[in-house]
Amino acid sequence: MKVLIDLCVVPLGTGVSVSKYVAACEKIFLAAGLKPKLHANGTNIEGEWDEVFAAVKRCHEEIHTMDAPRIFTSLRINTRVDKEQTLEDKIMSVQSKLSGDFNKETL
Amino acid sequence: MKVLIDLCVVPLGTGVSVSKYVAACEKIFLAAGLKPKLHANGTNIEGEWDEVFAAVKRCHEEIHTMDAPRIFTSLRINTRVDKEQTLEDKIMSVQSKLSGDFNKETL
Amino acid sequence: MKVLIDLCVVPLGTGVSVSKYVAACEKIFLAAGLKPKLHANGTNIEGEWDEVFAAVKRCHEEIHTMDAPRIFTSLRINTRVDKEQTLEDKIMSVQSKLSGDFNKETL
Amino acid sequence: MKVLIDLCVVPLGTGVSVSKYVAACEKIFLAAGLKPKLHANGTNIEGEWDEVFAAVKRCHEEIHTMDAPRIFTSLRINTRVDKEQTLEDKIMSVQSKLSGDFNKETL
Repeated sequence: MKVLIDLCVVPLGTGVSVSKYVAACEKIFLAAGLKPKLHANGTNIEGEWDEVFAAVKRCHEEIHTMDAPRIFTSLRINTRVDKEQTLEDKIMSVQSKLSGDFNKETL
Repeated sequence: MKVLIDLCVVPLGTGVSVSKYVAACEKIFLAAGLKPKLHANGTNIEGEWDEVFAAVKRCHEEIHTMDAPRIFTSLRINTRVDKEQTLEDKIMSVQSKLSGDFNKETL
Repeated sequence: MKVLIDLCVVPLGTGVSVSKYVAACEKIFLAAGLKPKLHANGTNIEGEWDEVFAAVKRCHEEIHTMDAPRIFTSLRINTRVDKEQTLEDKIMSVQSKLSGDFNKETL
Repeated sequence: MKVLIDLCVVPLGTGVSVSKYVAACEKIFLAAGLKPKLHANGTNIEGEWDEVFAAVKRCHEEIHTMDAPRIFTSLRINTRVDKEQTLEDKIMSVQSKLSGDFNKETL
């Protein structure tokens, strides 16, 4: 089963900056052969369910190892069986419904 | 690694009611020996990471099998390595900080 | 427009415990005449959109005033125009689809 | 109070495609003078709290008007009072912690 997720990790008990933890997760996803797409409030990843969630688990393990005693993660999970749809397909589908003027501004 | 999650499944392409899908997920968690705590906007579950996420995957598979072509899930994931904390501990910790008057009203 | 939300506030830069901040939010909701339903990973609230979101804003303001320099909130928002549905209706709808045996265990 | 949000709207009871609703929301944010940043699982928006949430409310109203009887929205909310941080700052902060090689692949 293919899955598209949007992962946002929030370490607690470690100060206000989360970027080094997000960077550590990016490296984990890349090392797993996944192609994370970073955005300002999370990271989008697509792949087979088991591979994606094995990497999410490694993110939690790694962030705890770095120094965070507690982690809160907000995750969005998308699966569909009617057709294959990539992360890029989803963006293109919205863009095709926006006029050319809006298009340039929103991406 | 212990994990506490809050799962909210939203099937798409199947009408406005989601309760039968939520009920199906409850049965999956119970069958897995987990103890789901249903609330109005999701279900709280605690357990070992691998067991919990294996059950989440089965929820997606089951909902697709029932009839939903697409599923959106909102998931909150909590892990901590500084101490053990159950779902009930979390609620009690908030309650202990509310006065007796508020206490009765908020739960 | 009526709305049902599920709010989970996570203060950053203040240590691992979040319960005192959650308790502060409960008091804000009660003071606003709303009826928060606390669960292990958040709080469910129902009411008119403007009242509910005014209270959510006050939660952020209060938590910053307490001491948290940064706040991450995970929010689920439900609106529907086909029928009125309360938080309790949502839970009852799931329960009615679970057998009596499951019923007792899941709530 | 400035806020950075990540909005993901999921209409129920209207079929499996959500892109036309997402496009409608983009137009609402643009019309409000906000600068939405679309990604594969949501839209990032930054601005003053009241302006941003007024636009979120209009999104729900518009999607109901279009035809969706029920809407589920997953929202991430970020506020901080220690410093100003834009959506781009957040991304740059992570990128600066990734090596040059990773950098190109992840964005």
